[in-house]
Amino acid sequence: MHLARRQVHSGRVISLDVDTVRFPNGTTGELEIVRHPGAAAVVPILSNPTGPDPAVLLIHQYRYATNGSLFEIPAGRLDAGEQPIDCARRELLEETGVTAGRLEPLTTIWTTPGFTDERIHLFWAADLTSGAPAREEDEFIEVVSKPLSQVITLIKEGGISDAKTVVGILYVAGFILGH
Amino acid sequence: MHLARRQVHSGRVISLDVDTVRFPNGTTGELEIVRHPGAAAVVPILSNPTGPDPAVLLIHQYRYATNGSLFEIPAGRLDAGEQPIDCARRELLEETGVTAGRLEPLTTIWTTPGFTDERIHLFWAADLTSGAPAREEDEFIEVVSKPLSQVITLIKEGGISDAKTVVGILYVAGFILGH
Repeated sequence: MHLARRQVHSGRVISLDVDTVRFPNGTTGELEIVRHPGAAAVVPILSNPTGPDPAVLLIHQYRYATNGSLFEIPAGRLDAGEQPIDCARRELLEETGVTAGRLEPLTTIWTTPGFTDERIHLFWAADLTSGAPAREEDEFIEVVSKPLSQVITLIKEGGISDAKTVVGILYVAGFILGH
Repeated sequence: MHLARRQVHSGRVISLDVDTVRFPNGTTGELEIVRHPGAAAVVPILSNPTGPDPAVLLIHQYRYATNGSLFEIPAGRLDAGEQPIDCARRELLEETGVTAGRLEPLTTIWTTPGFTDERIHLFWAADLTSGAPAREEDEFIEVVSKPLSQVITLIKEGGISDAKTVVGILYVAGFILGH
């Protein structure tokens, strides 16, 4: 149970609170919690999604926090009042230039519930039409297309290590495409 | 490229920096980054791991950030200088009371690289021997055993939504046990 809140930081992407809480056993303590508006991410499936090995679109993106570039599925933060599916559609267009004729929910994950309330709403997209991306100023992104089998091998061998991307791809492979 | 760092918070679990950085295109900006020591997590496999549907141990844990309880695999933060595999062994014992005769690496994930450097090192464990758990004061945990097939159904239907747990289970099912 929440007893008191001290806001330590309120920023562009996240805020940080130190909350005083009462635990289930009656003791009290302080917990750090990073508040995040939530995000949406989308697995864009190219070619015939019922074919033997469809391709998926990934982005190769510089991440300051990891001191390097990661392969990820397109994703971004929810704008105020924005529905997750609208965010997924918008981020797919902004980051890859692609419009999806079909956009379906996969699942929603807590990224790291020990210290943040961030949730990512995952979708898959098909019937893709290419256009021009419209990236934000601080996004440095290359779009790549890879066969799903190759993406799964990259996950297995550690070449893809972003959690939402691993979840999205394995979910699509196991539960949507039945690979 | 890192130009300047302002530490906003230094706490028990995380610290928060606001870094001034130069982006790949030469512009500069500020980025919020939550510094985390990293963590280890482990998928404990009961029964015969080569059997048709082995059981796995999960913990049902209250999480303040999610305002409820989540099913998760045992996990915890690296102590200073601690190797991930030693952390996995320690957390498995502390949270479930189980000692693993076999402990093998799965992969390492970035939990949410947009704002934190947290990585979780994932393992699987077998040849389990039960004992008494030794939990930390602020951990409120129930240990449950479920058949892997049921855990996968829970993931598919959204009843398991912690990212490291989804990654660990789907990785074990797809790449270790071949389900």
